[in-house]
Amino acid sequence: MAEKEELNQLRTEIDECDAQLVALLARRNKITGRIGAIKQQTGAPLHAPEREANLLAARRQEAINQGVNPELVEDILRRMMREAYQNQQAKLACAAPELSPIVIVGGAGAMGQLFANQFKRSGYEVKILDKSQQHQANEILKGAKLVMVSVPINALESVVNSLPKLDNDCLLVDITSVKQSPLKVLKKAHSGPVVGLHPMFGPDISHWVKQTVVVCEGRNHEVARGLLSQLQVWGCQLVELDAKKHDEAMQIIQVMRHLTTFVYGQFLAKQGHTLEELRSCSSPIYQLELMMVGRLFAQSPELYSDIMLAQFDNVEQLLAQYQDTFATTLDKLRAGDKDALIAAFGEAKAYFSDSTAHFLTQSRSLLNKANDAKVLD
Amino acid sequence: MAEKEELNQLRTEIDECDAQLVALLARRNKITGRIGAIKQQTGAPLHAPEREANLLAARRQEAINQGVNPELVEDILRRMMREAYQNQQAKLACAAPELSPIVIVGGAGAMGQLFANQFKRSGYEVKILDKSQQHQANEILKGAKLVMVSVPINALESVVNSLPKLDNDCLLVDITSVKQSPLKVLKKAHSGPVVGLHPMFGPDISHWVKQTVVVCEGRNHEVARGLLSQLQVWGCQLVELDAKKHDEAMQIIQVMRHLTTFVYGQFLAKQGHTLEELRSCSSPIYQLELMMVGRLFAQSPELYSDIMLAQFDNVEQLLAQYQDTFATTLDKLRAGDKDALIAAFGEAKAYFSDSTAHFLTQSRSLLNKANDAKVLD
Repeated sequence: MAEKEELNQLRTEIDECDAQLVALLARRNKITGRIGAIKQQTGAPLHAPEREANLLAARRQEAINQGVNPELVEDILRRMMREAYQNQQAKLACAAPELSPIVIVGGAGAMGQLFANQFKRSGYEVKILDKSQQHQANEILKGAKLVMVSVPINALESVVNSLPKLDNDCLLVDITSVKQSPLKVLKKAHSGPVVGLHPMFGPDISHWVKQTVVVCEGRNHEVARGLLSQLQVWGCQLVELDAKKHDEAMQIIQVMRHLTTFVYGQFLAKQGHTLEELRSCSSPIYQLELMMVGRLFAQSPELYSDIMLAQFDNVEQLLAQYQDTFATTLDKLRAGDKDALIAAFGEAKAYFSDSTAHFLTQSRSLLNKANDAKVLD
Repeated sequence: MAEKEELNQLRTEIDECDAQLVALLARRNKITGRIGAIKQQTGAPLHAPEREANLLAARRQEAINQGVNPELVEDILRRMMREAYQNQQAKLACAAPELSPIVIVGGAGAMGQLFANQFKRSGYEVKILDKSQQHQANEILKGAKLVMVSVPINALESVVNSLPKLDNDCLLVDITSVKQSPLKVLKKAHSGPVVGLHPMFGPDISHWVKQTVVVCEGRNHEVARGLLSQLQVWGCQLVELDAKKHDEAMQIIQVMRHLTTFVYGQFLAKQGHTLEELRSCSSPIYQLELMMVGRLFAQSPELYSDIMLAQFDNVEQLLAQYQDTFATTLDKLRAGDKDALIAAFGEAKAYFSDSTAHFLTQSRSLLNKANDAKVLD
């Protein structure tokens, strides 16, 4: 009984601690809000890597001094920083006022909205040109200094070709996940500056800081610099890349992974086990994999089939290679050829080389997080 | 200049806030340490789901009242709870003293060590019987009430068969990832109580709370109840499952996923792109997938080949089905048969049904966490 009372007393103390945490977060929010306002006035980028590193190092040291796990402190501080970045999105600095007004073609879609809102928060005049406004295209595009095309990949060519002639100093940009052929389409339709972007994120990001954007040069790249500075003010990490190199890497990663995941999802659906049964027999890593297979099927079947069909010509050869690797592996297993398996394993290991250790650490931390979030009865 | 000064001033305020956070964490640690001690004395389970839910709900409400994002508060509290569970591992309650002394066969391996330490912290007498102690087997096993075999799957049969005869009231347990054949081996070698466990986690967990353990009945299940209570005191979530059902689900999930990941890693290694190039063109979700492919190759080629070979007979048919699904999908793509692709997509979508939305939310939160942890120059 005394123990029960003591437990209740200690739990009250925990609650007091946690209430102080909430108050502390409210205070921190106010301060980071003011920092955001200053950054907006001065045009300083949201993300200050050096300040971030110093802040983390100082608090880690303090944690060690006070007998607190420095990893705990770093995890919490990083989560707080995410919140600060998110709050600082409300009003952003304008890095390239000369690019205003901006027109987002396909601006009613999720990615178009994301960019439109972000440009608006940075003080740009933003107009939307979606299907329904097609008859007003001339009027909407008049005087535009930046036209960003944000439409599905298979609609890009027809949408771009149906645009009225843009001013010669207007920067034309696309954000599709392929870069060679869209850049060709853009350059053919417009004689002024052109740049291809591939944002490595979806419309559901909580903020833009540290998000990667691949940049592929089109024409008059110096005009694109203003847009790139704006992305940097938002905190984006820019990776300038050759369009061909980009497309090849994309095919290997995204398209192949899409297709193998699609096949795996179908395969699972054919087995006589419910998802619940499979999940109860899955360690966190397989839960994570199941999650990544399952999330693909949250998409629209029609849209997804279009995407696969549009990409197929480019990856048919890769798919054949994958099939071949699969068949070869089966042969080795069937023959019980351990040496050949070890050799194949060794080659892939060499490819991933030092990254495997990093991958292990990183995935461990994500798995911990997945376990933290588990809700049980 | 005034702005720069103000920014510095605000950063000092942030530092003060964060210093208070560290102090608060130190204080919370002390309190949860005392709570852990009481739980150890009273034998209460580490994980108190109802208290956890109440605590989160109360602080979320407080966050809303103070204009703080309740998700932020919940994320931080869950991270703090992980820390508390971790700290409370030091001394644990003993739920089944009648199972002492315990012998861990293969107790020098990572999983064996994990269990040995956990049993010791709960006050059990624990002995290790590893290869090097083979000549002392009789002496070490004398009077053992619980013998846990923690050896690689392909060594299980020979290790169990070489054990001296155990006392009739001794509980014999294995923790391999397959359950039907090990249970047969255990029951053949020992006439007393037997139970099969499959811990759904690796040796690198930070604590045992909310970790899943599959339990497959062997013989005299009532004797195993003490062990299961102990797992629950540690916070484990137990899933009792038929061994056959378990093995089938395991084959579909873990073995198949292992093999397709192994094939994918080999495929990537054959392409003419460095891992760096591929990563720079990967959105967070593909970074995560790359990470999960890469982490497989952190293992020993020899051990891994053994595992694949040991499992092959059971999954040969599944692999053929997967290959077939792959080929059928390629045919549909080659024929440009959009209707067939939509139908196939629809079937898998129906299988994942309501979970897709949950998977999306969950993966979004993990991707946010991965982005938080990014370290840039």
